[in-house]
Amino acid sequence: MTDGRLTAGAIAALVGGELVGHSDTPVAGAASLEEAGPGDIAFLGASRHTPRLADCRADVLLLPPRLRGVAGGPATRIIVPDPRSAILAVLDALTQEVPGPWGVHPTARVGRGSRWDGRIAIGPGATLGAGVRLGAECRIGPGAVLGDRVVLGERCHIGAHAVVAADTVLGDRVVLKPGARVGQEGFAWMGPAATPHRVPHQGACRIGDDVEVGANATVDRGSLGATVIGPGTKLDNLVHIAHNVRIGARCMILAQVGVAGTTTIGDDVAIGGQAGLAGQLSVGDGARLAAQSGVIGDVPAAATVSGYPARDHRAVLRQTAALARLAPLVPTLERLVHDHADSD
Amino acid sequence: MTDGRLTAGAIAALVGGELVGHSDTPVAGAASLEEAGPGDIAFLGASRHTPRLADCRADVLLLPPRLRGVAGGPATRIIVPDPRSAILAVLDALTQEVPGPWGVHPTARVGRGSRWDGRIAIGPGATLGAGVRLGAECRIGPGAVLGDRVVLGERCHIGAHAVVAADTVLGDRVVLKPGARVGQEGFAWMGPAATPHRVPHQGACRIGDDVEVGANATVDRGSLGATVIGPGTKLDNLVHIAHNVRIGARCMILAQVGVAGTTTIGDDVAIGGQAGLAGQLSVGDGARLAAQSGVIGDVPAAATVSGYPARDHRAVLRQTAALARLAPLVPTLERLVHDHADSD
Amino acid sequence: MTDGRLTAGAIAALVGGELVGHSDTPVAGAASLEEAGPGDIAFLGASRHTPRLADCRADVLLLPPRLRGVAGGPATRIIVPDPRSAILAVLDALTQEVPGPWGVHPTARVGRGSRWDGRIAIGPGATLGAGVRLGAECRIGPGAVLGDRVVLGERCHIGAHAVVAADTVLGDRVVLKPGARVGQEGFAWMGPAATPHRVPHQGACRIGDDVEVGANATVDRGSLGATVIGPGTKLDNLVHIAHNVRIGARCMILAQVGVAGTTTIGDDVAIGGQAGLAGQLSVGDGARLAAQSGVIGDVPAAATVSGYPARDHRAVLRQTAALARLAPLVPTLERLVHDHADSD
Repeated sequence: MTDGRLTAGAIAALVGGELVGHSDTPVAGAASLEEAGPGDIAFLGASRHTPRLADCRADVLLLPPRLRGVAGGPATRIIVPDPRSAILAVLDALTQEVPGPWGVHPTARVGRGSRWDGRIAIGPGATLGAGVRLGAECRIGPGAVLGDRVVLGERCHIGAHAVVAADTVLGDRVVLKPGARVGQEGFAWMGPAATPHRVPHQGACRIGDDVEVGANATVDRGSLGATVIGPGTKLDNLVHIAHNVRIGARCMILAQVGVAGTTTIGDDVAIGGQAGLAGQLSVGDGARLAAQSGVIGDVPAAATVSGYPARDHRAVLRQTAALARLAPLVPTLERLVHDHADSD
Repeated sequence: MTDGRLTAGAIAALVGGELVGHSDTPVAGAASLEEAGPGDIAFLGASRHTPRLADCRADVLLLPPRLRGVAGGPATRIIVPDPRSAILAVLDALTQEVPGPWGVHPTARVGRGSRWDGRIAIGPGATLGAGVRLGAECRIGPGAVLGDRVVLGERCHIGAHAVVAADTVLGDRVVLKPGARVGQEGFAWMGPAATPHRVPHQGACRIGDDVEVGANATVDRGSLGATVIGPGTKLDNLVHIAHNVRIGARCMILAQVGVAGTTTIGDDVAIGGQAGLAGQLSVGDGARLAAQSGVIGDVPAAATVSGYPARDHRAVLRQTAALARLAPLVPTLERLVHDHADSD
Repeated sequence: MTDGRLTAGAIAALVGGELVGHSDTPVAGAASLEEAGPGDIAFLGASRHTPRLADCRADVLLLPPRLRGVAGGPATRIIVPDPRSAILAVLDALTQEVPGPWGVHPTARVGRGSRWDGRIAIGPGATLGAGVRLGAECRIGPGAVLGDRVVLGERCHIGAHAVVAADTVLGDRVVLKPGARVGQEGFAWMGPAATPHRVPHQGACRIGDDVEVGANATVDRGSLGATVIGPGTKLDNLVHIAHNVRIGARCMILAQVGVAGTTTIGDDVAIGGQAGLAGQLSVGDGARLAAQSGVIGDVPAAATVSGYPARDHRAVLRQTAALARLAPLVPTLERLVHDHADSD
């Protein structure tokens, strides 16, 4: 599956493992136990997966010390404490990015005054507005749209059909996956309820270095202030970030999370899938919000919350367990309360 | 609303119903009681909808035996045990797909080595990479993007702006609705937390026969193993399927469901809207997950679960009812506990 | 940040405030306390934000009477009861829409028989089917797709890559943000479970005047009846509206809400982010559904509900508080129940 070329011996050295078998076995790819074929390396992480070895056609196997002698599967083995991490390192070594051609596809449309440094790739049917600036080695996918005055740092990858609204600023190495929508006006209305019109959105949308925005995710621009995604933060698919939200550095925000307007999130925050945050809140550094949490109040730094309304995760677990124990007692408890009332 | 042509008599025969009135009344379309006009057939499913007959302008009415003599509405009637199913059969008989023209639109871009069998339709602005293969009678919508080496079976319909990443394989009769994103790299990171980089995604993305992927839904490719959607499974709009997920055959997955990485789902599973499944889980055949369920553990075959954390649906209902009964008793229960402590 | 030109004196008159300082200070933009620079106006809404004045470089400040003398920040001030509303009015006055050029971009594709009244703008790579009708001053963004026979009223804005399926009808001043998908077939299946095929969707999709559909949101067409979005209703990003849903006027539906098939929603309903509504339900006028609500039954007019299953919001709060109080009492309550059983 890859173009890289390694040997079992080289891999053992790479991952700091002990080699059993042929050091010069060539390894061209990595795959799961079922999907691996000749030339591939696979890994066995836990004893419950050993039955899967029976039909494994890989040539090399990564496995932990306690499973070193397990029957079945490849005879050439590399013993390593954490085979899961090791296979990732191998994958990384095997993967060689094959860049597509540089240049501007003849069907791309580039507006007046747009310019770039060094080589770039602009795909078929992509549209750049006026005054766009691209850093070196940016890649703009098929059909992507960059509005007027959009600025990209170096080595950004804009996926097919991603849309970046006018005046949005992206740092270096930003990845927008297919269909991401960044910098459009947000959802805020003024005037009489019967005939509202949109609050003007003059604020910026600034995406930091090494940020990723997932497929079909949306990030609205600010109204007065800016919407800011800090460096290294990753947004998974279908995430929604409303106007004026500020997210710090290195946050991991899983699929389908929604963050309402003007909420502030610190650094190194982890948010599980489908969690929702109300507007105007503050979430401290290092907080962890469980999947599907419904956050309607501030979250202190380093707190772990879950449930709706989101609260201390251990309290939620205790309360859920308590309710399961209480439910069958309800009729008796009602009688007790009734008797108690009678005895007053 | 259709181009088909039927009569009341033909429809009675089609649905196995009893005709009352004119057998030769022409029927050109089907619509709801309010929207039906001359030439249309409508249906009355329950007695609470009989007031809606007053203004009904349909020419033919499907209705159940117990309502056969109800006043108002069309005089030509077809008596049938299940009018709802019957109207669907009529709709189906009336609907004649009007295929657009075959061929490759002059503004479509087709990469080197791409080829197809029989007639196909590639819409305006669509982009096919190199080495793409299309089965007979595939239709590629306006602006859709198929990456290098994508393979489609026969009669696939790729909606406007859908994006299929390189190396993805689709079976026969697969439907991708507008804006679906299939086969892009997933959300998994390695290396130091401060400067993570993406786990390489060398795994496949395989979509079985008769699968549908809803509008703006996302299906990520695998990292080591494959992401697999089994034959006949239907994904509604805005669904998210993470990397390495394996879904069996004939599952029904409603809008906005999210499935995290490496989770395995059996055959014939039904998942209600907005439900979320954590990663690394297993869901057995025939399980039913209620809307908004938060699944954080394995689900046995044929189980019905709901709530967060998702558990047996009847237990959730019992516990919710129990809590409603307990809430008003809390002050008295606290007093009882207090008295009990005193008496110890 | 804007092209408008106002003075502090003109703004004081506009918002009905009291001017302190230089009436002729020019104001060219509005921004937050931190982001404002020379030529900008900012606002101070609450005393807890006064520390942010220290580094504020705005030239004019809106603030409430009780903070009129607060130290720091701009010397030219406008005293007004509600600075937040006032800044919105200023923003609105400053904002002058800069329309792009009218006309049809040479790379746009317009089908046979399509026509329009007055001036319109059709962007690069946009695709209009046959028989499309556009009202005056419609703007169609880059890559947008309008199917055959789509009808738009006046001054609609169709965002980049939005897709409107055949036969959909939009009123006046409708806004579709980038990637919105409107009018595609819905998710309903008939025939044997093993080999289902889609229920034909012959129903309409009608979008009223002044409706907005958010980025990457989806609105399916009807099967028998129509899907209808009433005038003035606003849908935020990533909302899903299933087939045959009818939504009244002036509803506010926040991001990632999902509404299942055939549900009816009245006028002036507010639905918080990520709420989900099951199918076949009815929600009365003026109801309020909290964020993440799971609505599985009808909601009366003017009711406020939350939680799953959604119920009276105050009951949910009471029950949540009751559970927190009960959890630590469980062991004692179990003992009481046990003793009570013994004493029977």
